[in-house]
Amino acid sequence: MKKNKLRELWANGETTINGWLGLPNTMSAEVVARSGFESVTVDMQHGCVPFESVVPMFQAICQTEAVPMVRVPWNEPGIIMRVLDAGAFGVICPMINTVEEAKALVSASRYPPDGARSNGPFRASFYAGGDYVKHANDEVLVIAMIETETAIKNLPEILKVEGLDGVYVGPSDLGLSMGEEATLAPTSQKVIDGIEKIADLTNEAGLVPGVHGDGPETILTRYEQGYKFASLLNDTRLLATACQNGVNAIRGKGPAEAAKSY
Amino acid sequence: MKKNKLRELWANGETTINGWLGLPNTMSAEVVARSGFESVTVDMQHGCVPFESVVPMFQAICQTEAVPMVRVPWNEPGIIMRVLDAGAFGVICPMINTVEEAKALVSASRYPPDGARSNGPFRASFYAGGDYVKHANDEVLVIAMIETETAIKNLPEILKVEGLDGVYVGPSDLGLSMGEEATLAPTSQKVIDGIEKIADLTNEAGLVPGVHGDGPETILTRYEQGYKFASLLNDTRLLATACQNGVNAIRGKGPAEAAKSY
Amino acid sequence: MKKNKLRELWANGETTINGWLGLPNTMSAEVVARSGFESVTVDMQHGCVPFESVVPMFQAICQTEAVPMVRVPWNEPGIIMRVLDAGAFGVICPMINTVEEAKALVSASRYPPDGARSNGPFRASFYAGGDYVKHANDEVLVIAMIETETAIKNLPEILKVEGLDGVYVGPSDLGLSMGEEATLAPTSQKVIDGIEKIADLTNEAGLVPGVHGDGPETILTRYEQGYKFASLLNDTRLLATACQNGVNAIRGKGPAEAAKSY
Amino acid sequence: MKKNKLRELWANGETTINGWLGLPNTMSAEVVARSGFESVTVDMQHGCVPFESVVPMFQAICQTEAVPMVRVPWNEPGIIMRVLDAGAFGVICPMINTVEEAKALVSASRYPPDGARSNGPFRASFYAGGDYVKHANDEVLVIAMIETETAIKNLPEILKVEGLDGVYVGPSDLGLSMGEEATLAPTSQKVIDGIEKIADLTNEAGLVPGVHGDGPETILTRYEQGYKFASLLNDTRLLATACQNGVNAIRGKGPAEAAKSY
Amino acid sequence: MKKNKLRELWANGETTINGWLGLPNTMSAEVVARSGFESVTVDMQHGCVPFESVVPMFQAICQTEAVPMVRVPWNEPGIIMRVLDAGAFGVICPMINTVEEAKALVSASRYPPDGARSNGPFRASFYAGGDYVKHANDEVLVIAMIETETAIKNLPEILKVEGLDGVYVGPSDLGLSMGEEATLAPTSQKVIDGIEKIADLTNEAGLVPGVHGDGPETILTRYEQGYKFASLLNDTRLLATACQNGVNAIRGKGPAEAAKSY
Amino acid sequence: MKKNKLRELWANGETTINGWLGLPNTMSAEVVARSGFESVTVDMQHGCVPFESVVPMFQAICQTEAVPMVRVPWNEPGIIMRVLDAGAFGVICPMINTVEEAKALVSASRYPPDGARSNGPFRASFYAGGDYVKHANDEVLVIAMIETETAIKNLPEILKVEGLDGVYVGPSDLGLSMGEEATLAPTSQKVIDGIEKIADLTNEAGLVPGVHGDGPETILTRYEQGYKFASLLNDTRLLATACQNGVNAIRGKGPAEAAKSY
Repeated sequence: MKKNKLRELWANGETTINGWLGLPNTMSAEVVARSGFESVTVDMQHGCVPFESVVPMFQAICQTEAVPMVRVPWNEPGIIMRVLDAGAFGVICPMINTVEEAKALVSASRYPPDGARSNGPFRASFYAGGDYVKHANDEVLVIAMIETETAIKNLPEILKVEGLDGVYVGPSDLGLSMGEEATLAPTSQKVIDGIEKIADLTNEAGLVPGVHGDGPETILTRYEQGYKFASLLNDTRLLATACQNGVNAIRGKGPAEAAKSY
Repeated sequence: MKKNKLRELWANGETTINGWLGLPNTMSAEVVARSGFESVTVDMQHGCVPFESVVPMFQAICQTEAVPMVRVPWNEPGIIMRVLDAGAFGVICPMINTVEEAKALVSASRYPPDGARSNGPFRASFYAGGDYVKHANDEVLVIAMIETETAIKNLPEILKVEGLDGVYVGPSDLGLSMGEEATLAPTSQKVIDGIEKIADLTNEAGLVPGVHGDGPETILTRYEQGYKFASLLNDTRLLATACQNGVNAIRGKGPAEAAKSY
Repeated sequence: MKKNKLRELWANGETTINGWLGLPNTMSAEVVARSGFESVTVDMQHGCVPFESVVPMFQAICQTEAVPMVRVPWNEPGIIMRVLDAGAFGVICPMINTVEEAKALVSASRYPPDGARSNGPFRASFYAGGDYVKHANDEVLVIAMIETETAIKNLPEILKVEGLDGVYVGPSDLGLSMGEEATLAPTSQKVIDGIEKIADLTNEAGLVPGVHGDGPETILTRYEQGYKFASLLNDTRLLATACQNGVNAIRGKGPAEAAKSY
Repeated sequence: MKKNKLRELWANGETTINGWLGLPNTMSAEVVARSGFESVTVDMQHGCVPFESVVPMFQAICQTEAVPMVRVPWNEPGIIMRVLDAGAFGVICPMINTVEEAKALVSASRYPPDGARSNGPFRASFYAGGDYVKHANDEVLVIAMIETETAIKNLPEILKVEGLDGVYVGPSDLGLSMGEEATLAPTSQKVIDGIEKIADLTNEAGLVPGVHGDGPETILTRYEQGYKFASLLNDTRLLATACQNGVNAIRGKGPAEAAKSY
Repeated sequence: MKKNKLRELWANGETTINGWLGLPNTMSAEVVARSGFESVTVDMQHGCVPFESVVPMFQAICQTEAVPMVRVPWNEPGIIMRVLDAGAFGVICPMINTVEEAKALVSASRYPPDGARSNGPFRASFYAGGDYVKHANDEVLVIAMIETETAIKNLPEILKVEGLDGVYVGPSDLGLSMGEEATLAPTSQKVIDGIEKIADLTNEAGLVPGVHGDGPETILTRYEQGYKFASLLNDTRLLATACQNGVNAIRGKGPAEAAKSY
Repeated sequence: MKKNKLRELWANGETTINGWLGLPNTMSAEVVARSGFESVTVDMQHGCVPFESVVPMFQAICQTEAVPMVRVPWNEPGIIMRVLDAGAFGVICPMINTVEEAKALVSASRYPPDGARSNGPFRASFYAGGDYVKHANDEVLVIAMIETETAIKNLPEILKVEGLDGVYVGPSDLGLSMGEEATLAPTSQKVIDGIEKIADLTNEAGLVPGVHGDGPETILTRYEQGYKFASLLNDTRLLATACQNGVNAIRGKGPAEAAKSY
């Protein structure tokens, strides 16, 4: 089976950058995948990507060496198993607030005896190799989103769930759950503390912390906070900002304000 | 944030007509949206619309002033959040039979602290405005389908669920649940009584009652019964009836019998 | 090879009604095909149907006994051959104004030695039978649209083109070409005379005249004028009219004015 | 309502062959449906078929007499009801391990009073007839996948669930759950015993046992073991094997090894 | 009929900015259309947009006040008429090198008696108004691409073709035709002279010159050269540059070199 | 720019096998591309592939080292340029019967000064490299289909057209044009002679002869006749044969007769 390059890179102590696909389109997926990211994530939760687009977008990504991942819309076994069958080498699941939710996520993502994933890797066995079923439990990344106060409270126990590889922080939801602004670059100390605490606890547990970003500056800060992977900004917002900056420049205005909310 | 026109109209005591889209197509969506309805609902339950079509159909609808809504396939947080992110200004959820189900629906539809909706309005923030997150809880309509005897029994308590805006009656399911015919224009007194009771209780609670219809005549009756909004008939049935009437007229037959079952 | 039912019906002196599909959708196609039409035409010219939808829409139609036809976007051999490969049992081609154009249409539609159609009936041989290539020239209908003054002038010669089966009148284009109103129910005597002349010449030549309609009344008139097949009205306009009539009835207004222009 | 041919065939003691569609495409669906199978199943679990493709693929299948079925991605009422509305005459549900899961499956698949299916057969009433709602509970097949040791243990009780028509074995998942190889043609005696036991118990209970296959040889063995219907192999694997065999033959190599894992 | 805002703006002496859509997607189309461009062009030539996407992308654009236009793949009457029927308020046609080609373009774009456009505005009459056919010849923009030395030579005569509204320069093709580099920001004096000459001749003839750009700087230069509208850069390249700049910034590298070739 | 592996292989005297895609689907494209073919051709003429599917199918193919090619639907510059922009490394054009047609094909396929191809390689420059425009004329293969008696007669002159790389024989169309059976494995001596003559003339001219096949046996014969590349059989027919053989084997019948007509 094809190796998961993210595991190697992180094992070597490297930080990685993740591309984020919210546009349900294979051409934009190829453009992003060819931009130098170590991994690219198809967003089925807050992107407008239906299941129908996952396989074609993966095929676009898998022309390159970027690792294909998915953020699933919800912690539901049917969709988790389907994106894995489609060839996802990592699954990011939103709103994991409790140990039970983390266990359910792992169960849906791992073949027996580690979990209860059903077997039928319709594209994964073509993409990753005929021995996919034997090695998938070792290669596929299972990543829980930690994005509420409750989740932080439960994090020490969540991190002990066998089969979990890492966590991913949604700073904007975390802010909302704390009664603060929904932003990817929080200035509230409470939220910042939360973000730092998640990195610390995850690193201590030997798992990998990741985080959603809003651009290079914030991401460099996250690396300093201990995060091992971070997403630049979704394709939709990158395109919107590029357009607005272009129009503004022609009209003699300053650059557009960066998107903050997601 | 863009205002929800249905709220204004109902506040002014007006009744509204809703278009109903079961065809997964943007051209038919535009045709319906340009026909004078105050709102148009994309039906993901008993229409054949996949999630993939929701954004393009919303874009077709949002060329007009009609309010875009969705009937979700089921009371599942993943899909509810996704259609809201896509820009739905109202979500109609089938088979709400208990207070717990109603609370789950509201939780998935409202941002904290009113609920647990995750933040990432990928189209809503473009369509409705950059301040969407701040005002969404005030504008988006959350509507529970009341369509079984159990639901009627629990209605008084359901109507007290904070964050619920209205109910929507499926007369055909209501009939089935009562052991009566599955029809949009019931003649069974038991079903008629149920329909009237729902309107009464909902109006008394200060919420908005809506109902599925099979044509102008039935809808005018529903308005008299206290309903504030009603759906004409889905696009599929409107087209079928128009075709059959045309063929019959050319062949010297009478008009086709109206669809009754859904 | 499956027989073309239209040929049989016309040979028996019967008139037929044609359904007209402008919505690029298989669900609406099935609804129309199940409404009692003898044939159903997918409109790639003034409908919004791309080639991608032709096969799925044909599959929807071919659940029934309605004969599947296409109006191609233009007299271009590539697209004519493709819709025939897809299983069209009739091809209607717009704007045939000269004998040369009619010959080009036939050449693209007929296998050698009758024409220069290339062989590769990717769906037709599954749908119509393994002996499709042997019999296609006998079953497939080739129909030229006569819709300008020039075309009427050249009609006697056009009707002599070997391999042509019939003509189809676009009353609205015919009106425009004569400097009259673009309408499917013309009141200009000049246009009416043209419509009658086309039927007469075509019948005299032993070919089959067809015409686009705007509803039962006009179609019954066309039958009296000698037309053998007529299209009711496209699905888009049928749906628009049904919606507007419904909204108007609820609001106490009269029925919507029928679409006239196409 | 159209009759379910599988019920008739099985009542007559005949065994049937099932085609299996994992490619989300209507052309391949038509090709398979025209190959002589008594039923064809659209695989939404381990096939890459989204809901969007179900209706067009059913339309392709329903050109023939093959019975249209779906394997749903998971035991979730929303998707079960949707594929039934789309016209599925049989629903195969993965991973039914307990009586409670079997009851939930039946509840989602049957109209009241036998279950809690919501009414709105958007395509089924066009395809199967206007009286669909009255007869659907008698015609639609509800089939539970038995594919773990737990499920075998609970099978006697599962088979007593009112409204269940049959079971379907996934040999590869069954093997995995037993700590054996994931293969469609198991050689482990433990798995073979399980497969035989399922057939025996199901036949004794008067229900219909079905099974996934990897080619004619295995299927003939299954018939001998008491299975009444079996799936040949999915379209994806059939195509892959045909391609590899062709390339190998041209290069003087032997045939490709058959796919075993799913 | 809805007015064409570009005509008004240009009549008032204003310059306009055009968005350029090469991604076949409605979400990216909405993002671009909401960025402040006066017009947005769907590129069917060097974008990967099929006809299938034109209507949904127009619907996305027409939520805003941006004028919807199309660059057609070639000077072929079938596709020109189809995009106009879809609601294009401007058609940009590549490689118009001769008066004959310009006349053919106009003929396909204008209703009789100004041209030979066939009538059937399947979406345009919904979007622009029921009187579309009467006014379309006055509102729709017909724009010829001038992008070879031959075209410049013939430009004085091309500009006299009745019904032509403007020209659009492809600097990269112009460079290639002159044996120079294919770039949107040419430094070859020969190409620069050509670009300036086209603006001069077009303005003198009272028509509107437009041009493809690679960013604000080049576009401001073009305005100074007399161009009235210019395209910022296509969505694909904007996204690619944004991604590469982001990755480079995180890795401490400078910004990506701007795309030059198209 | 990425090199065209077919050129290298042929230069080394090797024969190659080509996969043939008629199903408009990316999953089947990946399956075929991973089967060991040196090139894979997307068939837009007698396959049911629309332009919309070309980019996603190319992305599926370009995960592997197979060279992506297209058979265009017709010798029309718009579509030829679009598939090249999409990243085709070879274009096969049907029905090239004359020198003029061959020159038009080359002109549409080559950048100036070798031809008149317009510049804008929207995916090709991402896939093949930023210097694509400089080298495309050297790498892209231009292949004319020779499939009529007229074409054979004109072949010596056609082979002299500068910029043409090879020819491709359609045996079934060749048979039809000679008044013989339409089959991929002709037994008519006249057709066999034609097939041999094409190989001889093409090899003598230093160009590459290719041919459509119906399976390994015929292809091995073609290699002996001098052909350098051959297509196995299209995916649709491979799947149909696999299904029929499977069903027949289970029912105790012999293998299905091979498809012969295309």
